[in-house]
Amino acid sequence: MGEFELLAALRGRLPEPGPRVRLGSGDDAAISVPGGAVATSVDALVEGVHFRRETASLHQIGRKALSTALSDLAAMGAEPGEAYVTLGAPPTIGEAELLELGEGLAAVARETGTTLAGGDLTRAPVLTLAVTVAGHAPCAEDFVTRAGARPGDVLVVTGELGGAAAGLLLLEDAGTTADAVDAPIADTLIRRQLDPTPRLAAGRALAAAGARAMIDLSDGLAGDANHIATASGVLLTIAADSLPIAPGVDAVAAAATCDPLELAISGGEDYELLAALPPAAVEPARAALAAICTPLTVVGAVEDLAGTPPRAEIRLAGGEIRRSRGFDQLRPPEPR
Amino acid sequence: MGEFELLAALRGRLPEPGPRVRLGSGDDAAISVPGGAVATSVDALVEGVHFRRETASLHQIGRKALSTALSDLAAMGAEPGEAYVTLGAPPTIGEAELLELGEGLAAVARETGTTLAGGDLTRAPVLTLAVTVAGHAPCAEDFVTRAGARPGDVLVVTGELGGAAAGLLLLEDAGTTADAVDAPIADTLIRRQLDPTPRLAAGRALAAAGARAMIDLSDGLAGDANHIATASGVLLTIAADSLPIAPGVDAVAAAATCDPLELAISGGEDYELLAALPPAAVEPARAALAAICTPLTVVGAVEDLAGTPPRAEIRLAGGEIRRSRGFDQLRPPEPR
Repeated sequence: MGEFELLAALRGRLPEPGPRVRLGSGDDAAISVPGGAVATSVDALVEGVHFRRETASLHQIGRKALSTALSDLAAMGAEPGEAYVTLGAPPTIGEAELLELGEGLAAVARETGTTLAGGDLTRAPVLTLAVTVAGHAPCAEDFVTRAGARPGDVLVVTGELGGAAAGLLLLEDAGTTADAVDAPIADTLIRRQLDPTPRLAAGRALAAAGARAMIDLSDGLAGDANHIATASGVLLTIAADSLPIAPGVDAVAAAATCDPLELAISGGEDYELLAALPPAAVEPARAALAAICTPLTVVGAVEDLAGTPPRAEIRLAGGEIRRSRGFDQLRPPEPR
Repeated sequence: MGEFELLAALRGRLPEPGPRVRLGSGDDAAISVPGGAVATSVDALVEGVHFRRETASLHQIGRKALSTALSDLAAMGAEPGEAYVTLGAPPTIGEAELLELGEGLAAVARETGTTLAGGDLTRAPVLTLAVTVAGHAPCAEDFVTRAGARPGDVLVVTGELGGAAAGLLLLEDAGTTADAVDAPIADTLIRRQLDPTPRLAAGRALAAAGARAMIDLSDGLAGDANHIATASGVLLTIAADSLPIAPGVDAVAAAATCDPLELAISGGEDYELLAALPPAAVEPARAALAAICTPLTVVGAVEDLAGTPPRAEIRLAGGEIRRSRGFDQLRPPEPR
């Protein structure tokens, strides 16, 4: 198969286009009629940087590429709409494997109501996916940016933290971590790493509940909270002992002789949502998220800067401030 | 500089956002309010596949990445709107070079009225750019797809063909081609290869003149004409001796002992437009394009299939049909 036959075979595996899409993949461009405001985000996954073929199947890589891109739309409170995928394939990946990757993309598209509306396929030295996603809302003001947090707001986080980083330790340091947790917990942690779930319904519920600022936790709570602090011009204070750390993270961290708090605040890739809510919105938001089986935990507060620079502080029980930095995609990973 | 500082420095070099953009780069997603129909296309440039650092500056690579993506919008007759850029950078590329690449992107954005509304920056083994562009029209029906050509239509092509392929020969086979043409012609041919111009105004003019099908010539006339034939279910007949071959192509081809017609029909990367027009629209279209200094040449006709499969035929003066295939991005290039 050449480029065009392979694209046709991939297109045959896609779900039906959504109502806004008038022309899908296969022409010079896709055509859509949004009928409101659009949130657009781009995200890349590169072999050797974001995944390794040794620990992730092509189906999982396809799933993760679309899920992590959609996570940015979740953080806007957007309804997912269209996705456009650029796929760079090395000569070592055959057609069957590219179709398996396409099946992974298509599965997440089906689960989330996203139309895979366009793509480009090219050679590349390593497997490279760049995904653009467009999400929708009636008005631009319906989207939740990082910039609206105000002193007095309450900080909440969905789900659990540290699981994706613990899953990575289970995959990469199996020699020391293999017996740290029972198999069902290990499976859950590894799934958090390989197959994250974008919190799309939770993001829309938090937006509807009145969230003033929101971000998805891709780089780690420590770094991502700083983005809200900077964009909003506020101080975020987060209580370390309030963080909802995923079951098994403590045991995996102990086996790998690292700090479970560090996995939770700078391990990254949990793809949970961090939001600033007015105090009166917390209980309604919690109830709305309970209805979709998503826990919501109060983890801190938004405070006035009082002349100091915008920042997020993660405070330990004794009052000490933990400094940490998020995952920087340009820097090589720290040696473990 | 880390990822975030570098992104901020790149953002500082961008033109002001267009009227549809409510929030540009820097949040989880960009926000726009299209107010009509949107054409979206994705395009990738990979080092070693689409360019070599030895023959193209980073400024030129940035320009070409956005120009070639916008060429797909030209082929829809769309007004350019927003671009979203995923940049994979190898460790060998420094910050100053990434900013130079950003300047190239920003220059084309300024020249075409495109807003660089979002991006993602990551490590990658070779320089990799994936560009998503969104273009606009009042209604979905205003866009010109590949599918509307009808028997009786006239085939037209903008500008000149073969120049980009001849420019590539001048760059890559300098030993045999260096003295083939005078310096001003060589410069023009090399610029066609390194810095193509998306035919945005010509695309809108052809759409307004009533073009029924349109495509940009990225892979070469032979292959791209087949896309219109297949999508429209027609036979395209193209007269080889009518093709507007760029000055200097014959001489460069002779020096490289290759066929100038092959450069024009399967060299690719000319980024001219091929359109099917009703006969009465040809002269108005030619006049509209003359007003923006863009030549328009009649190169063939759309015919009924009469029971045969959809295809494009390039006919030589003696009546012989030239078979050729376009540039396939998954196959390695033919040895020269």
